[in-house]
Amino acid sequence: MTTATQTRTVVVEREIPQPAGKVWKVLTQSHLISEWLMHNDFDLKVGQKFKLRGEWGGVLDCEVLSIEPERSLSYAWNHDNDDPLYALKSVVTYTLTPTATGTHLKVEQTGFRPEQKQAYGGAHAGWKQFLAKLEELVGARPSS
Amino acid sequence: MTTATQTRTVVVEREIPQPAGKVWKVLTQSHLISEWLMHNDFDLKVGQKFKLRGEWGGVLDCEVLSIEPERSLSYAWNHDNDDPLYALKSVVTYTLTPTATGTHLKVEQTGFRPEQKQAYGGAHAGWKQFLAKLEELVGARPSS
Repeated sequence: MTTATQTRTVVVEREIPQPAGKVWKVLTQSHLISEWLMHNDFDLKVGQKFKLRGEWGGVLDCEVLSIEPERSLSYAWNHDNDDPLYALKSVVTYTLTPTATGTHLKVEQTGFRPEQKQAYGGAHAGWKQFLAKLEELVGARPSS
Repeated sequence: MTTATQTRTVVVEREIPQPAGKVWKVLTQSHLISEWLMHNDFDLKVGQKFKLRGEWGGVLDCEVLSIEPERSLSYAWNHDNDDPLYALKSVVTYTLTPTATGTHLKVEQTGFRPEQKQAYGGAHAGWKQFLAKLEELVGARPSS
């Protein structure tokens, strides 16, 4: 007998007309992360724990899991809640691939359980907004 | 000997050129709250527990504390975290006062401890954004 643990993954991809080194910077420097994602005390070290803070008092507990400079970065992205429907244990992975015109950026967030449909849908919408700000910051699209 | 518990309060006020009944609706109807504040399962009953959900997996645990129709509404706005610096126990109160031209809306969020400077500053910025969306929704300012 096997126990299947099914989780769903949010995947969002962007073609960014900037070199991978520039995209890497906005993914890994705390003051830049705060401009497109959330306020944070991120530090680029495997095992480093940090927090992402929403403007309304919400907090995510995170930990750097792996680093491959200018290629990939992954960190735990967790949120405690007494109600299992809202407790989240997920991993976010950024993968950068150089292209002829810039960089292909893939963002994956794994770990949504089947019953967490709202969190899954919300994360999908959230990443689109975060990446729109990232693109603006990195100079890939005009500011609005 | 007395123990003083000092907490700070965020206060944001707006003059809205709409009647109090219209402002009350956007504060108390779940589908409207989701348009200017966050996704939620709000219900207008004292003692009702509900959640406010950020798009990125963060959740606030809330409970309706008092209701005075078209005049005031208050609810607990809490966030658990193992780190006391990030754990938040606050109360949000909306007070509506009819004026000659519409409604004066005051939003107060109490409960920030002195060391929670970042959460306090973030909440102040957050309420400005939330109320800008509320004003747009209620027809008090043009959509951008």
